[in-house]
Amino acid sequence: MTKSALQIARAAYKPKVPNVLTSIVEIQEGAPTQSVANQDEVKQLFPNTYGMPLIKFVEGTNRPEYTPINVGVILSGGQAPGGHNVIAGIFDGIKNMNQDSRLYGFILGPGGLVDHNYTELTADIIDEYRNTGGFDIIGSGRTKLEETWQFDKGLEILKKLNIKALVIIGGDDSNTNACVLAEYYAQIGADVQVIGCPKTIDGDLKNEMIETSFGFDTACKVYSEVIGNIQRDCNSARKYWHFIKLMGRSASHIALECALQVQPNIAIISEEIEAKNFSLDDVVNYIADIVAQRAANGQNFGTVLIPEGLIEFIPAMKNLIAELNNYLAHHEDEFKRIKRSAQRAHIIDKLTPVNSKIYASLPETVARQLTLDRDPHGNVQVSLIETEKLLAEMVSNRLDEMAKEGKFVGKFASQVHFFGYEGRCAAPSNYDADYCYSLGYTAAGLIGAGKTGYMSSVRNTTAPAAEWIAGGVPITMMMNMECRHGKMKPVIQKALVDLNGKPFKLFAKNRESWALNTDYVYPGPIQYFGPTEVCDQPTKTLQIERSI
Amino acid sequence: MTKSALQIARAAYKPKVPNVLTSIVEIQEGAPTQSVANQDEVKQLFPNTYGMPLIKFVEGTNRPEYTPINVGVILSGGQAPGGHNVIAGIFDGIKNMNQDSRLYGFILGPGGLVDHNYTELTADIIDEYRNTGGFDIIGSGRTKLEETWQFDKGLEILKKLNIKALVIIGGDDSNTNACVLAEYYAQIGADVQVIGCPKTIDGDLKNEMIETSFGFDTACKVYSEVIGNIQRDCNSARKYWHFIKLMGRSASHIALECALQVQPNIAIISEEIEAKNFSLDDVVNYIADIVAQRAANGQNFGTVLIPEGLIEFIPAMKNLIAELNNYLAHHEDEFKRIKRSAQRAHIIDKLTPVNSKIYASLPETVARQLTLDRDPHGNVQVSLIETEKLLAEMVSNRLDEMAKEGKFVGKFASQVHFFGYEGRCAAPSNYDADYCYSLGYTAAGLIGAGKTGYMSSVRNTTAPAAEWIAGGVPITMMMNMECRHGKMKPVIQKALVDLNGKPFKLFAKNRESWALNTDYVYPGPIQYFGPTEVCDQPTKTLQIERSI
Repeated sequence: MTKSALQIARAAYKPKVPNVLTSIVEIQEGAPTQSVANQDEVKQLFPNTYGMPLIKFVEGTNRPEYTPINVGVILSGGQAPGGHNVIAGIFDGIKNMNQDSRLYGFILGPGGLVDHNYTELTADIIDEYRNTGGFDIIGSGRTKLEETWQFDKGLEILKKLNIKALVIIGGDDSNTNACVLAEYYAQIGADVQVIGCPKTIDGDLKNEMIETSFGFDTACKVYSEVIGNIQRDCNSARKYWHFIKLMGRSASHIALECALQVQPNIAIISEEIEAKNFSLDDVVNYIADIVAQRAANGQNFGTVLIPEGLIEFIPAMKNLIAELNNYLAHHEDEFKRIKRSAQRAHIIDKLTPVNSKIYASLPETVARQLTLDRDPHGNVQVSLIETEKLLAEMVSNRLDEMAKEGKFVGKFASQVHFFGYEGRCAAPSNYDADYCYSLGYTAAGLIGAGKTGYMSSVRNTTAPAAEWIAGGVPITMMMNMECRHGKMKPVIQKALVDLNGKPFKLFAKNRESWALNTDYVYPGPIQYFGPTEVCDQPTKTLQIERSI
Repeated sequence: MTKSALQIARAAYKPKVPNVLTSIVEIQEGAPTQSVANQDEVKQLFPNTYGMPLIKFVEGTNRPEYTPINVGVILSGGQAPGGHNVIAGIFDGIKNMNQDSRLYGFILGPGGLVDHNYTELTADIIDEYRNTGGFDIIGSGRTKLEETWQFDKGLEILKKLNIKALVIIGGDDSNTNACVLAEYYAQIGADVQVIGCPKTIDGDLKNEMIETSFGFDTACKVYSEVIGNIQRDCNSARKYWHFIKLMGRSASHIALECALQVQPNIAIISEEIEAKNFSLDDVVNYIADIVAQRAANGQNFGTVLIPEGLIEFIPAMKNLIAELNNYLAHHEDEFKRIKRSAQRAHIIDKLTPVNSKIYASLPETVARQLTLDRDPHGNVQVSLIETEKLLAEMVSNRLDEMAKEGKFVGKFASQVHFFGYEGRCAAPSNYDADYCYSLGYTAAGLIGAGKTGYMSSVRNTTAPAAEWIAGGVPITMMMNMECRHGKMKPVIQKALVDLNGKPFKLFAKNRESWALNTDYVYPGPIQYFGPTEVCDQPTKTLQIERSI
């Protein structure tokens, strides 16, 4: 492996950890817990792992005698900066308990457990990956661990390798499945503990006990770096509106965090669009009005942040997509026989009037994406829709109309960007490097304490690392019942942007000023070696949420 | 202006400069110079500024008495990291000569000189912009200073402000024009010196005396950061081929430098494509073959770097575009009357057989871009063509054919990216911060020495900054005669990638290995505060060029 100078220098970084993790750890148990909703249903589904107490690590006096333990680890789902440090933390944690402990990594995600595809992670391998981005140490994958046969198949290899505990590093779904697995293994007396770790750049796995999911900090900082650079360009050239789409699936946490970091002229928050029942036209008008106001001040440039999931949060678009999916599912052959150039008119003719009108208003490329690029189940692939181009084009059309009415006097030219893959595998910021290592080390502590069905929890992370609080949260505590594919299932409640939360409110308070007064902030690239106010700050979201 | 923590910390950075600039400067003049070609023609066009000697600053003993001088500065063309430091260097340089000297900035590029749009740059303004990216201190613009009336109009304001010297910060064209202006002012006895500074992220303004243009270092490092992040993602998810287009206009310096930094599976170098007379199909086959070979090794993922100017370097595409431009210019009305859905077939019918065949092979979206999106002169706008999508789509089609022939067994899915605006206004790396400040300070020295028609030159930049060599190069020395818009003109020779140069040769030697063995390097973000081997390295291109 050829390494850059930064990779080499960064390898020597020692993550900062809570003081308690460097001491003799004892566990302090709280009162029994309840799930956030649907207590009866969740309790019934998790008889062995429901109601367990919160766990807090405290400094103890007597070091227990730990026997060697074999542990397995799985990276599940999309990459997030810091995954390697979670694994390094687990490794150091179980080695600290007993030097003869061993760590096995399952290859390319949960599929590796089912397919018995694994590797032992030894000290030399771990050292190669400390403080690096990516999940390439063992790879990740999107296989869902949901079926009993998978659990049984996995158990075969766990037994063969004498693995007594499995750590699943993943998002809300993967941690839900981790809990189902913990419950199943407890139920059949498999003697395998399962511990989860909160991962996702999207930031939508968080609650009272999980302040943030790892990777969100680094990814947002990378996006804010490049958005900041674009804003500086925008403010120098003074001739483009930049439409910038940001990853983050359904939730707009990333768009909101980046907005707080860079102070763009416009940021769309999907959750607000849905709450206000905005149509696509409302969004377009909102942007076009700000463009016109800035133009009136001689500023024919600006920036717009757009969350990836926007389209699905516009109620009218959701209805259109539902009708399209339904229509195309039932008329696939008929539709395919129609000449490409006539397809659009055909759809306009077939839809109900309200959806037909919306469909007709869409630019041709987007209309085509909505009818052609369907997934194997016949559904529109909303994630493929280039929302940034869609909005730029529709805003341009709207401004043309406004110009005729004398309501827009200026120039409008746009550039579009989409940032996602640029941030998911960045080398973790100091925050994520510290947080992830601590999460992994804490997971090892939970294993040492014989726990299962818990998520590793590290809190108070806006304080210096020494003061962070480490422990475990019963995963069932975060669950409620939701309808998935037509069936009620126990799942971890997804955290969308809270419109009554402090971060959104701060944004809402400032956005009018940011829209008209160019007040861009340029965060610059993540720094690893400089002053602490540059290198060790958590996200704005976390700082604002935890401010008094 | 709200500032990020990094902006605040970075403001305190003191650029490192050549030792000679901190001493009493004397100038050492070399022998008379010649233009790189067409000596007679160039000499005739520049009777006052041709043949001047190279200038090297050396340590002197007697400090001359400098009278106060008013200086003007212009940022010309596309943004490049470090422009603000050039201005800070000029400011500090002329203030060092005499505290009563003044600096005026012309607003939004050369147009500001012609339109008498200016601002005085005082110490408090300069201090706000030290070590920052962007050109927003005075803005930039693309107005070309070419006409005598512009020179005369500019002279009015120069006289009014008692400006005795003008520094033009720009690329090859802007520096050519700076020299024309210098010659004109000398010829009419205007008593205004003109000095150029080599700016462009594209890296195509360089020669024996100008090692590199400023901004190239920082921009390439930003692009390499995000490409590295994508490669780490690519190597973790193991399911996508990422097609990444990079800015850089005609030259492929940026693509080559990034390739040397990140070691991608594939990098296309336009200059090589042209030299080998490759067709678009050849390029597609080259990529598809590597995809197939990697797939045979079980690696259905990879990265491809594509220079922005590629299409224009494919001789067959150049011919197609020329014929299209010609056809559409003469049949515009006829073409417009044809139904959109029939236009493609119409063009295929009208072109000569060889071009018709190429046109027919292009994906529909690109074919449409080639016929529809024409500039005000009726020409195809090649820069709008999404080459990254074009290649991804054509490679996909080719692989489908290869699969039928049993020559490709694997999966192919692609993601596309285009990086440009992300890097042009990044905060300058230490290298660019130092280099730019030194260029500006040197420009002030040339002004102090009464010179005109020179470009500020700072060399030996792979050594520590203390050992850098500062001085001036007569701009006429870099000129030759080239045909522009049908007329022979004196211009600075554009530096394309030298296929016999060491950087390309090193790339060519390694690319087969990089193609098949995943040997990605992850450079990470630019660091400003860490160890010198991380923070103070020039580009790989420069290091390799200047290695023995």
